[in-house]
Amino acid sequence: MREPQLVLRKDGRRATLVPLGKKAFGRDFLVVAGPCSVEGDASFLALARRLKAAGVDGLRGGAFKPRTSPYEFQGLGIEGLKILAAAREETGLPVVTEIMDARDLEAGCRYADMIQIGSRNMQNYTLLKEAGSIDKPVLLKRGMSATLMEWLNAAEYILAGGNNRVVLCERGIRTFEPATRFSLDLNIVPAARGLTHLPIIVDPSHGTGRSSMVGSMSLAAVAAGAQGLLIEVHPRPQNALSDNDQQYPLVQFPALMKRIRKTAALMESFARRPSRAPRS
Amino acid sequence: MREPQLVLRKDGRRATLVPLGKKAFGRDFLVVAGPCSVEGDASFLALARRLKAAGVDGLRGGAFKPRTSPYEFQGLGIEGLKILAAAREETGLPVVTEIMDARDLEAGCRYADMIQIGSRNMQNYTLLKEAGSIDKPVLLKRGMSATLMEWLNAAEYILAGGNNRVVLCERGIRTFEPATRFSLDLNIVPAARGLTHLPIIVDPSHGTGRSSMVGSMSLAAVAAGAQGLLIEVHPRPQNALSDNDQQYPLVQFPALMKRIRKTAALMESFARRPSRAPRS
Amino acid sequence: MREPQLVLRKDGRRATLVPLGKKAFGRDFLVVAGPCSVEGDASFLALARRLKAAGVDGLRGGAFKPRTSPYEFQGLGIEGLKILAAAREETGLPVVTEIMDARDLEAGCRYADMIQIGSRNMQNYTLLKEAGSIDKPVLLKRGMSATLMEWLNAAEYILAGGNNRVVLCERGIRTFEPATRFSLDLNIVPAARGLTHLPIIVDPSHGTGRSSMVGSMSLAAVAAGAQGLLIEVHPRPQNALSDNDQQYPLVQFPALMKRIRKTAALMESFARRPSRAPRS
Amino acid sequence: MREPQLVLRKDGRRATLVPLGKKAFGRDFLVVAGPCSVEGDASFLALARRLKAAGVDGLRGGAFKPRTSPYEFQGLGIEGLKILAAAREETGLPVVTEIMDARDLEAGCRYADMIQIGSRNMQNYTLLKEAGSIDKPVLLKRGMSATLMEWLNAAEYILAGGNNRVVLCERGIRTFEPATRFSLDLNIVPAARGLTHLPIIVDPSHGTGRSSMVGSMSLAAVAAGAQGLLIEVHPRPQNALSDNDQQYPLVQFPALMKRIRKTAALMESFARRPSRAPRS
Repeated sequence: MREPQLVLRKDGRRATLVPLGKKAFGRDFLVVAGPCSVEGDASFLALARRLKAAGVDGLRGGAFKPRTSPYEFQGLGIEGLKILAAAREETGLPVVTEIMDARDLEAGCRYADMIQIGSRNMQNYTLLKEAGSIDKPVLLKRGMSATLMEWLNAAEYILAGGNNRVVLCERGIRTFEPATRFSLDLNIVPAARGLTHLPIIVDPSHGTGRSSMVGSMSLAAVAAGAQGLLIEVHPRPQNALSDNDQQYPLVQFPALMKRIRKTAALMESFARRPSRAPRS
Repeated sequence: MREPQLVLRKDGRRATLVPLGKKAFGRDFLVVAGPCSVEGDASFLALARRLKAAGVDGLRGGAFKPRTSPYEFQGLGIEGLKILAAAREETGLPVVTEIMDARDLEAGCRYADMIQIGSRNMQNYTLLKEAGSIDKPVLLKRGMSATLMEWLNAAEYILAGGNNRVVLCERGIRTFEPATRFSLDLNIVPAARGLTHLPIIVDPSHGTGRSSMVGSMSLAAVAAGAQGLLIEVHPRPQNALSDNDQQYPLVQFPALMKRIRKTAALMESFARRPSRAPRS
Repeated sequence: MREPQLVLRKDGRRATLVPLGKKAFGRDFLVVAGPCSVEGDASFLALARRLKAAGVDGLRGGAFKPRTSPYEFQGLGIEGLKILAAAREETGLPVVTEIMDARDLEAGCRYADMIQIGSRNMQNYTLLKEAGSIDKPVLLKRGMSATLMEWLNAAEYILAGGNNRVVLCERGIRTFEPATRFSLDLNIVPAARGLTHLPIIVDPSHGTGRSSMVGSMSLAAVAAGAQGLLIEVHPRPQNALSDNDQQYPLVQFPALMKRIRKTAALMESFARRPSRAPRS
Repeated sequence: MREPQLVLRKDGRRATLVPLGKKAFGRDFLVVAGPCSVEGDASFLALARRLKAAGVDGLRGGAFKPRTSPYEFQGLGIEGLKILAAAREETGLPVVTEIMDARDLEAGCRYADMIQIGSRNMQNYTLLKEAGSIDKPVLLKRGMSATLMEWLNAAEYILAGGNNRVVLCERGIRTFEPATRFSLDLNIVPAARGLTHLPIIVDPSHGTGRSSMVGSMSLAAVAAGAQGLLIEVHPRPQNALSDNDQQYPLVQFPALMKRIRKTAALMESFARRPSRAPRS
């Protein structure tokens, strides 16, 4: 394959800052949290208020859901987008949502602050091309068996279309290990940061598939150099309409947020004093 | 995930026959061949005539190309579809082509006899749902890291939409082995045949990524129980505009076709006399 | 890593023939069959006679068993080797058995005709080095996550020690697919044959882990270019002391042998008339 | 496979403490560092003194080296063990070294404080069984394609032999990703801690294969809950006789140690106040 051009870190090229509300990926450490699916109006607003109180920087929630089986809950669609927008109105938090079909990009841009392209669509080139001409930032998840170079090339499609506000999100890869749903590949964080000027964040919810591991792997992601986190949180995970094994219980989330912030602060203190000795 | 319903082989359920021209996957052993991309009018027609002479049952050729990099040849689009249709007119051979965007399904159905959904779109649920309401058969390639159950669930989306003319196509999975571009997973052929009534065929071109291995793996696929083959053939592979390492040289193809037919005939002679002893 | 030297096919280097009884891997298509473990005297002899009648070229049977759990049957040890030798005495068939510890190589060579080094020991360098100085041929199974080059380097250890009678055996690799215990990587057969002068055979029993798939994958291996097969056969698979899911039922085996021979004969007829057109 | 018995965390079972010098895995956060191979007397002593000054808890160094190719440096053998012992004498630091052959266990136990069983020997059952009867603790690395349950079963072999002083060490698994030599699987840290009472540590050197990533992934491992680290450090990595891409430069190591200690201290402060809300 050809080398990507626009996404690579070239000499002197600054890190790209991707705005989300008043903050920016690449400058601030951002936590985006919310349920797997938007399930209803009142419940989402209640959750959004609690997440705001816990100090998150953005809300996530799926309106269009990519589901393995056609008989599983497929999301509320446009109705879900409106609920997201209402939650933003109420809390002031920017919202991120997944779009699976290029024809829904316009609606997504009308209601959301950032468009997510999911793992299963990382090589949906139609969607990537059209995401290149929208005026919203894009969260591009890594395909579950995509190499780093394939992922960067997918981002290249968006930048080549004129939109350079792209954030990469590691979300677990497919391996032989059955103990976890996916294997979170934190190696990719320093590997990506060495190659690209785009910010990279981590989704420990999909990356483990088990809510009991989300806390540990959130902190591990921060320590690996991730520039943000995308975490699924639900008030009653066992009742969730999708992915109920992996959603973090809301009641424990404020404590986790404190740990994430403390770990991020420690990592930032390291970054201000680079450890590398001069190569004399 | 929920179990698929419509694709599973239930007691007494017959194998599904999927027509292609005057033949049918599931009843006849079908070979579909052609270049990775349709590259131009005259060259495709000349190739089509040679493939017809070699005895193929259908033509393949990409008009819309999913390419890893945005800087690679992206296909001729509608122009390519018209060239395919002209080749069918001339040779009488049915044509198969990949559609990547639901908005192109109508054009695909107008010009082609069978619509391919590629590996990278195996979980593009928008495309799968709309393929459920077209009146053409669908060739559904396995995602490069899809499990058998995920693949069957993807097919279930199409059947649930009302279109049961689906052929499954194994095309290689992603593994740790760097000696080949993908690892052709022939285990999946008997595994799939045990579970589903849909026909399953094999693409040894993508499944190896190396034209020197296409001959051996074509025969291996037949022996594993595949009900057809999808082979990339090009008159001058080294000049191909896409995937030139894996396209089989046209000059050698007639000899390979003879071997494929002989192997398929041997396998059919076995199938007529089942080896399984009665379980008394 | 350094390139292997002795195992590579260099210009003019003939294929290596590895003798087994009066036949030779690399010249004849050989089928070696037997139970996973040698379980007892009388039962093994009875099975050996039936396998001889079915036309196999060698017997396999494990005396030392590599078992995932310490609480599973670990094999009969030296007693098992003696049973193997007795079966050879009675049937005239050469016997192949696995050795896991360099200290058992001497006993293995005393009782068996060929020493197997199993998948879990493919990079047990102590064992490989000492296998380089024995006077018996070695069957070297591929590690379950070994690349082709690592496998060839493991063989290089044996050749570098002075023993060039090595047969490679593909036995399935570890992938993400849960439908089968391992994924039989038949791509490796033509890939290996292009690189090395050593014979390569296939073990469809471990390579699938499911006896219902052993027949199909045996034929597929032959068609892919394998130069022999290693098949687990048991008179009552459900009662076997190890790997009972994957052992082929003895009652069906003679019919499978006929199919294997017919498929091998067809492939040999192809090999006598190479398909490659002259590259003018 | 059968469930392991002795390694599983049962109700009320305390975490196992495995001594190394005056400290203990499972109670203290331990860092063991040193070169891939012991390359010579003076150089190893000089390095050992520098590592002691940087605050490590143990020295590592390979005397017997598992090398992919027989033409690569195979280690100094017994001579290497003596150099390790001399370094311990001088620095007071306990030493850890890999043994590949059961016949070398006695020598290993004479000179070293802890015996490592490497990734390639994780299912060398002969070696595991004999490690069950030695009077030294064992560092058991995960096989590069071993599942968690296979790894725990390998440890079970050692415990079943009577030696319960076993430390597990994650060192990267084999995946499709070519950007790194292996993919460090940090998910396995919380997954293992939930199942077993044995301590688990991480080797970021093999787990990435790239020294530029060792710092980030060391911190990530600590944050994931690892109870120690095993790091390859070399004064001049580019001149190392083995694995020179992955050895961390000594000149940068003291700064990394400080970061590791600070991160470990932060994680310990979290552990003292568990985040889990009561499940009322």
